[in-house]
Amino acid sequence: MTAATRDSAPPSETEGTDRGLERLVFFSDAVIAIALTLLAIELPLPEGNDDAARWHSLGELFTGEYLSFLLSFVVIAAFWSVHHRLFQRVARIGSWIVRLNLLFLFTIVVLPLATRLHRQEGAEQVGVVAYATVVVAVGVSLLLLLWQLHRAGLLRPDTPPGAVPGTARALAVPVTAFAISIPIAFVSTAAAQYTWLLPVVVLLVVRSYRRLRRA
Amino acid sequence: MTAATRDSAPPSETEGTDRGLERLVFFSDAVIAIALTLLAIELPLPEGNDDAARWHSLGELFTGEYLSFLLSFVVIAAFWSVHHRLFQRVARIGSWIVRLNLLFLFTIVVLPLATRLHRQEGAEQVGVVAYATVVVAVGVSLLLLLWQLHRAGLLRPDTPPGAVPGTARALAVPVTAFAISIPIAFVSTAAAQYTWLLPVVVLLVVRSYRRLRRA
Amino acid sequence: MTAATRDSAPPSETEGTDRGLERLVFFSDAVIAIALTLLAIELPLPEGNDDAARWHSLGELFTGEYLSFLLSFVVIAAFWSVHHRLFQRVARIGSWIVRLNLLFLFTIVVLPLATRLHRQEGAEQVGVVAYATVVVAVGVSLLLLLWQLHRAGLLRPDTPPGAVPGTARALAVPVTAFAISIPIAFVSTAAAQYTWLLPVVVLLVVRSYRRLRRA
Amino acid sequence: MTAATRDSAPPSETEGTDRGLERLVFFSDAVIAIALTLLAIELPLPEGNDDAARWHSLGELFTGEYLSFLLSFVVIAAFWSVHHRLFQRVARIGSWIVRLNLLFLFTIVVLPLATRLHRQEGAEQVGVVAYATVVVAVGVSLLLLLWQLHRAGLLRPDTPPGAVPGTARALAVPVTAFAISIPIAFVSTAAAQYTWLLPVVVLLVVRSYRRLRRA
Repeated sequence: MTAATRDSAPPSETEGTDRGLERLVFFSDAVIAIALTLLAIELPLPEGNDDAARWHSLGELFTGEYLSFLLSFVVIAAFWSVHHRLFQRVARIGSWIVRLNLLFLFTIVVLPLATRLHRQEGAEQVGVVAYATVVVAVGVSLLLLLWQLHRAGLLRPDTPPGAVPGTARALAVPVTAFAISIPIAFVSTAAAQYTWLLPVVVLLVVRSYRRLRRA
Repeated sequence: MTAATRDSAPPSETEGTDRGLERLVFFSDAVIAIALTLLAIELPLPEGNDDAARWHSLGELFTGEYLSFLLSFVVIAAFWSVHHRLFQRVARIGSWIVRLNLLFLFTIVVLPLATRLHRQEGAEQVGVVAYATVVVAVGVSLLLLLWQLHRAGLLRPDTPPGAVPGTARALAVPVTAFAISIPIAFVSTAAAQYTWLLPVVVLLVVRSYRRLRRA
Repeated sequence: MTAATRDSAPPSETEGTDRGLERLVFFSDAVIAIALTLLAIELPLPEGNDDAARWHSLGELFTGEYLSFLLSFVVIAAFWSVHHRLFQRVARIGSWIVRLNLLFLFTIVVLPLATRLHRQEGAEQVGVVAYATVVVAVGVSLLLLLWQLHRAGLLRPDTPPGAVPGTARALAVPVTAFAISIPIAFVSTAAAQYTWLLPVVVLLVVRSYRRLRRA
Repeated sequence: MTAATRDSAPPSETEGTDRGLERLVFFSDAVIAIALTLLAIELPLPEGNDDAARWHSLGELFTGEYLSFLLSFVVIAAFWSVHHRLFQRVARIGSWIVRLNLLFLFTIVVLPLATRLHRQEGAEQVGVVAYATVVVAVGVSLLLLLWQLHRAGLLRPDTPPGAVPGTARALAVPVTAFAISIPIAFVSTAAAQYTWLLPVVVLLVVRSYRRLRRA
């Protein structure tokens, strides 16, 4: 395959790659940091004619727009954590990694747009489906990155054998939950949004199970 | 504790951590830099039909919206300075540091929202309480970072013994001042905002005392 | 020439240049990352009174504003990739490189403005011409950077002889396509926009040809 | 002086400073990059009912809002260049450098606000005075940084003796031009704005003189 061939080019052709890798990571961080910060920009403020009305309005925002903002912050932060851990294992990069990483950044840049759509009043079905689709796209682009890093032998030799399948599983859980929520949204948008909490449940169950096994 | 165990993992398991630490610091800087710059985006401009009216309008902005912007700039810059000095002492990071740092970044991202709420006319009580709460949250998240770095032994061995309690004290002063202002705001929002100047007073008193002791 | 003389200053005068080069690259990345993320900020959301109307509205956005956003993302990402690969070959920088890079960043900062103009309804001729002009300006500024790096001998000694003409050709293709589209836009804006797809066609043809030659 | 004493602390107390210096530079770059990119965000687009009207509108923007944007881009880029060259000479930093750099960043963050005010129609006197004041503040904060770096001995030992006075002169020219324009603006805002071109004139004269002297 062309991709694999290019990415596994001999060291002589990949000189300067260290700087290239560092810059790729840096550029990704800048894009993610901006997407994260922009989430809060267009959030509405509580409104009302007196303090009581404004406190009430604030309470409503917490169960609506602010909750949606929190969800997107957690989603971006979680994907950043995976990207952060994954790239600590990367030894070299190739042109396909650059492209897949740009695809990943594209999905990250689209996420604040999907967040706006999700919190827009009265657009429930479109908003829920679009949001879930973008989250799935972020996760899938990271899975593609992981897959290409693995098959082209770009990970550091000291990467433990369990790291790749472990990361794949960590990504598959939210991808599956958000993918399942898409057809559900056409029946019930509320049910679809509860599905998004599934990864948290799975995480808690897995942890309890491991703790029990160790004990 | 799981947290401590993970964070104090043996060197063999934390290879690549240097790059991870650098990236964490970098990512934090990008988020803080954006939050800082966004503070000025939505500031109103002086208005009026002639020069005299516009100069008058500018004067009013200086004691209102522009003062509020200056306060938030100083608050974010001060917390960045603490983060900057603290992370120069960090030797390694673990997954709990990543999470606590994301919590810190969350509070930083929310601060421009709280600033907008604070400077919104007529929302005094909600604005003052929300602003003080977010500042307390920023400080507490940094205190949690400091505490976890200390207890999991992630600071460099050459960290002077006084550095951790010194940083804790430096954070405790503004956290206390803003925390005290929250109940005060329900009685008088003006008094609550004067309380925010307390850290400056404390700083000046401490410095004069030290200068006297040395002399 | 003054430019060449300054840029090829002896090592003794360019100490600290490594940090200067790193910072130039970093600063460029930050500007490009922000321009990339800002593209999505002002995108409109689907509107309508019921789900069917909103799905229809979303479909229309995909062939209009969202397509325009995707185009700009691809354009900025492609130019970033060229900048990324080019600067891996750079050994030293001089004051002319700093200036030409600032010119490049200027064109990048203007691109989101041109994108907004391009997607503004009813401004077709102005929008198409302005957009094409800015893309040409981005490409030309990168060509100037490449030319100055080459003539002042600032590239690493291990740069393969084909790297400079190869990068020049990779830049010349989109620059030519967008330049040709400018006069075309005064006759037909639709035809002008189809011209923008030319680089993709050229790329595919070149690749097929190379694959055939190798086989 | 306390400042000098702290900044010239013995090496044993400034361990980890390398990372601190790098981070300070990085943080500054991120803030400057965002300020630079934000300049273009709120620029108006040409308007009109047909192509002719829109081309005319675009022409007017070029001599108004777009020219103001270009000016601010050049101003921020020029100050970034000075900061970039200055920090290549820095060996160590201290707490006063961090504070003065934050003051510099504050003036940079305020510049887009001053730009908006400057290009706001009908606010000529306030806009011109505010803009010139902020540019003076940016320059003065950089002069303070230079002065503190010099007096506390934080520059690298290999800094040529002419570098500090050279940088001071390079900063003094625009600072003087913009400072002179402030009183002029109360008589004629047009004359004040022409004064801003003075640094370009001075630069050209100095260069021609040097070229003649060399010949």
